[in-house]
Amino acid sequence: MAVETKKIRVETRGDSQVLDLTPSLVDVLQTAKITNGLATVFVVGSTAGITTTEFEPGLVQHDLKHYFGKIAPEDAYYEHEATWHDDNGHAHVRASLLGPSLTVPISGRRPTLGQWQQIVLIDFDTRPRTREVVVQLVGD
Amino acid sequence: MAVETKKIRVETRGDSQVLDLTPSLVDVLQTAKITNGLATVFVVGSTAGITTTEFEPGLVQHDLKHYFGKIAPEDAYYEHEATWHDDNGHAHVRASLLGPSLTVPISGRRPTLGQWQQIVLIDFDTRPRTREVVVQLVGD
Amino acid sequence: MAVETKKIRVETRGDSQVLDLTPSLVDVLQTAKITNGLATVFVVGSTAGITTTEFEPGLVQHDLKHYFGKIAPEDAYYEHEATWHDDNGHAHVRASLLGPSLTVPISGRRPTLGQWQQIVLIDFDTRPRTREVVVQLVGD
Repeated sequence: MAVETKKIRVETRGDSQVLDLTPSLVDVLQTAKITNGLATVFVVGSTAGITTTEFEPGLVQHDLKHYFGKIAPEDAYYEHEATWHDDNGHAHVRASLLGPSLTVPISGRRPTLGQWQQIVLIDFDTRPRTREVVVQLVGD
Repeated sequence: MAVETKKIRVETRGDSQVLDLTPSLVDVLQTAKITNGLATVFVVGSTAGITTTEFEPGLVQHDLKHYFGKIAPEDAYYEHEATWHDDNGHAHVRASLLGPSLTVPISGRRPTLGQWQQIVLIDFDTRPRTREVVVQLVGD
Repeated sequence: MAVETKKIRVETRGDSQVLDLTPSLVDVLQTAKITNGLATVFVVGSTAGITTTEFEPGLVQHDLKHYFGKIAPEDAYYEHEATWHDDNGHAHVRASLLGPSLTVPISGRRPTLGQWQQIVLIDFDTRPRTREVVVQLVGD
């Protein structure tokens, strides 16, 4: 049994951009000592989140952003913005709702995803960001 | 310390059906080598999710479906459907929001759930599905 | 490699109060045997959830409650309430949506959080509660 800490760094455009982390995770697993166990994929920061989706343009470029926009609209009132003279209250609310962490089983150095299921980061912030994603592996 | 991979297969009706996975997880733990550790319950596919709820008819047969239906209505516009001539855009959005994975502490071969807290799969797809749920155990 | 089970007990006011669990988690890690690995922070019960946010008054005292209130309003109809003559249907729906579990990487006895990212419990119930949070550590 072992613990390994790996990092993935991604450049985002913000504005609810959806990025596929699956190829980077697969790369990380190729060079890891751990073959079977758990991978926790955790984004550092409070205006982005991690989940899975089918990575196709309709969902990724339109639908996810649109429906998060209905839950916490960009142009609504946020006490966060009034307090800090900031513009990303909606980004914080969306990120807390989605959550920063996804744990996925690893079997034979592969995440146990479906064929049309990818691990994604959604960056809800209002400006481009460099995001650090910690991949913590526990297993053997 | 060990890693064990178990699978639970469930037949669903889709249409936001909520299924209690707790009895199956308890069964899996009875025959597992691991007594204490973590169990990650992960549904393969991008139109279903995992969470906990009190498994009683009001929430399970009405409320959860109703409020997910307010977030991402069945009859709204989805670019996913326009692109793929499909009908399950709402299922994808709901599943990404809920997430495919739940990690629960295992203590003495039991998940540390409350008395009125069950682990559930919600199948948001528009047709009956056979779902594979991976239960990954890490512990000793 | 080891497994350690720790507990954090918190008193809440309910009513979507947001509580910062980070100091308690840091305390737990100071006295734990595990230096690197995973921590699963799991709230027992089906009317509270765990996530991360920037712990500042605007988000914590207003915005999170306000937007969860738009998703599942307090004064809407819930079959759960009609069945059980209860008043916390909205609390159940919000808790299932948010989820009871957060898994965070532990590195050098510290969670890998951002500077403005705290681990929080949101208690959606309609009355004060004593909440038990299980912190399950797996690592070495």
